[in-house]
Amino acid sequence: MSLHRIVIVGGGFAGLNAARALRGADVDVTLVDRRNFHLFQPLLYQVATGGLSPGNIAAPLRAILKRQRNCRVLLGDVVDFDLAGRKVMLADGHLGYDSLIVAAGARTSYFGQDQWASRAPGLKSIEDALDIRRRVLTAFEQAERETDAARQRALLTFVIVGGGPTGVELAGTLAEIAAHTLRREFRRIHPRDARIVLVDLALRVLGAFPEDLSHEAESKLREKGVEVRLGVKVQGVDDGGITLQVGATTELIAAETVLWAAGVQGSPLGTTLARAAGCEPDRAGRVIVQPDLTLPQHPDVFVIGDLAHCLDAREGATQGKPLPGVAPVAIQQGTYVARLIVGRLKGRPSPPPFRYFDYGNMATIGRSAAVAQLGRWKFRGLVAWLLWLFVHLMQIVRFENRVLVLWQWAWNYFTFSRSARLITEVGREKSAVQRNVTER
Amino acid sequence: MSLHRIVIVGGGFAGLNAARALRGADVDVTLVDRRNFHLFQPLLYQVATGGLSPGNIAAPLRAILKRQRNCRVLLGDVVDFDLAGRKVMLADGHLGYDSLIVAAGARTSYFGQDQWASRAPGLKSIEDALDIRRRVLTAFEQAERETDAARQRALLTFVIVGGGPTGVELAGTLAEIAAHTLRREFRRIHPRDARIVLVDLALRVLGAFPEDLSHEAESKLREKGVEVRLGVKVQGVDDGGITLQVGATTELIAAETVLWAAGVQGSPLGTTLARAAGCEPDRAGRVIVQPDLTLPQHPDVFVIGDLAHCLDAREGATQGKPLPGVAPVAIQQGTYVARLIVGRLKGRPSPPPFRYFDYGNMATIGRSAAVAQLGRWKFRGLVAWLLWLFVHLMQIVRFENRVLVLWQWAWNYFTFSRSARLITEVGREKSAVQRNVTER
Repeated sequence: MSLHRIVIVGGGFAGLNAARALRGADVDVTLVDRRNFHLFQPLLYQVATGGLSPGNIAAPLRAILKRQRNCRVLLGDVVDFDLAGRKVMLADGHLGYDSLIVAAGARTSYFGQDQWASRAPGLKSIEDALDIRRRVLTAFEQAERETDAARQRALLTFVIVGGGPTGVELAGTLAEIAAHTLRREFRRIHPRDARIVLVDLALRVLGAFPEDLSHEAESKLREKGVEVRLGVKVQGVDDGGITLQVGATTELIAAETVLWAAGVQGSPLGTTLARAAGCEPDRAGRVIVQPDLTLPQHPDVFVIGDLAHCLDAREGATQGKPLPGVAPVAIQQGTYVARLIVGRLKGRPSPPPFRYFDYGNMATIGRSAAVAQLGRWKFRGLVAWLLWLFVHLMQIVRFENRVLVLWQWAWNYFTFSRSARLITEVGREKSAVQRNVTER
Repeated sequence: MSLHRIVIVGGGFAGLNAARALRGADVDVTLVDRRNFHLFQPLLYQVATGGLSPGNIAAPLRAILKRQRNCRVLLGDVVDFDLAGRKVMLADGHLGYDSLIVAAGARTSYFGQDQWASRAPGLKSIEDALDIRRRVLTAFEQAERETDAARQRALLTFVIVGGGPTGVELAGTLAEIAAHTLRREFRRIHPRDARIVLVDLALRVLGAFPEDLSHEAESKLREKGVEVRLGVKVQGVDDGGITLQVGATTELIAAETVLWAAGVQGSPLGTTLARAAGCEPDRAGRVIVQPDLTLPQHPDVFVIGDLAHCLDAREGATQGKPLPGVAPVAIQQGTYVARLIVGRLKGRPSPPPFRYFDYGNMATIGRSAAVAQLGRWKFRGLVAWLLWLFVHLMQIVRFENRVLVLWQWAWNYFTFSRSARLITEVGREKSAVQRNVTER
């Protein structure tokens, strides 16, 4: 008898953990991804700000899974699903499955204003991070050479849209780069004169955190010199900068660099899959799943991670909110689905619905400053920061990278330096900033 | 009285060392480069083969020079020289100088066959290295999915053109990746079946080394499974692979990946500068300089590093060979020119011609295998390899990077792994290989 074939689409937290949880099971697993590596997204902002190199927060999927003999890794582009025929359609072939796990993740959402994307890059991939790194560093370089005062001001103005953990981390880090890292490196400008603005429609940053921690984070940001603008709506992003709606008036902030950390939507594969199954995705392009993470009418198809719209079972099966798109949810869903499939094969009864165990939330604002909420406990300041460092360090997949990251963190902490500060070309349309540098 | 203005074009070994040697002098130094970092080129092949991250072998020029108050760094694109008006023309302005030091370096030469460039990338920049890394890794990925045996064979065939240190290092490392690093990572192919071919027109590898060390390197390469083809001329590189002229016959090697480590030519700025000075560059596009590294009739203009065609004074002023394009020559020329300029300002007599002090040569073939010639001493095997590691480690500019490189070397040595193995997009036209992956 041939083995039960499990195809996993996506090697992020959800997909990789599903694959690993199937270790030792008598099944035939294929993990397919467009990229050859697993990316540790929580530290992506440190690549964007020159603190770490891409290789430090990524690990080849093949290397991670090489000892798991029941699993093969395939570099491939999934384009469609044939649920009746139980096939995953690739750009250049197909894969048959008995159980399918789709964990294709999320990408940046501009809430329908996709024309802002080229002007205000998001932060979801290595290429995004290198693009942001290039824009930020190039802005300082151009400011050093600019003689027009207003234009120089715009070059030294950095607006971050979105007050979630990524936005807070970016804003805090940029403020430190301006105040410390670049200090004394320029002769005409003072990097500490840079204006860092964090804007959000909400009335507080870190909305998923307890209110007092939000306020703590906000005041820490202000201490570091970040302008925090809350209750403010983005009306437009164009070559002149970013236009905000503040109450009844509008305000233009002339800024060369605008970074987008405001929203995510499901990968386009979510919509493809939902339609193949005869349902509609939710408004954010996520696939609405059953309490056991399967698709309605398709008990052999699972959607997990950021792509899944899964109600929080802790709040009651029907009136709960969808679970947030964070790594712990993805990891737990991967493990849940793997166990469910193995249980089925052994003829065990169906397990109870997926239930997220929420350890808490943490976000860092910068040197020695973070907030964390773990169960009923709240932490702030140095303690929260050390906790953040420890938890993130321990989650990095490979020991080699863990040491590399620890060393760079220690070095950066004591010297205020950030060495991965290369302006390199990235594989995408050249931004306006870069065109200026090469063509002006 | 205003300070003597020195403009240095290029932040490689030559330009950076000239700038540093001017530390403390009562002059006004401007270092202009198109890139914001100094690149440690001798380790670039390790980025191309996934052993190190780009950030590990590059350091921001501003960070290196930030404490040198008489020096400013400018990110800019030099397009021409006005020697009569003593101006360096930038794409967007100009810089006046009293002394000019041009150290714009070299790039890959295809000996007039520039159409080979897209098919056989060279290795001179970070982008080159990431391009090669992507091609090599993608070839293995595609081979894993290929069902046609001949095509699979071509995907697993890697030809390196050029038997100098870079070619030998690339070939040796690729052989180890195939035999060790990728072992057990694939399910259909055996990476150790990869065919690595090193070709050169010369009759021995490492032509700059003593003959016995060349033979030692060749036999080490063969031990590692590299096919060494000497006395062989490249006739063509196209989609089918590479065509060699072997004696009177031609031979096609069907290979998806061809890497070019065969020749260099001066940066186009060399030709621009030579013409501005009313002379002709040499056949390799380098600027022919006087024994004191100035241009004829232009005692205020110096050319140093890979861009300079400078006769080896040790062999007599007129019949000597030009000095090789290696880091020690560039470093010593940078220091020489800095001292010469400072001496002139102090009214000292002209110094003797530049004289290269040759410490020797070293090249690594792979794990525990290298050859080195230091003065009258020759080393091979483990001793040469440890020497190579030590010398290269000590030359890395920043202590932080030195530790990062050492850790990764140690880790790679003991585990055979190479973790910086990301297939990322690089800022250039997509190669045929990549198009295949995304479009097939």
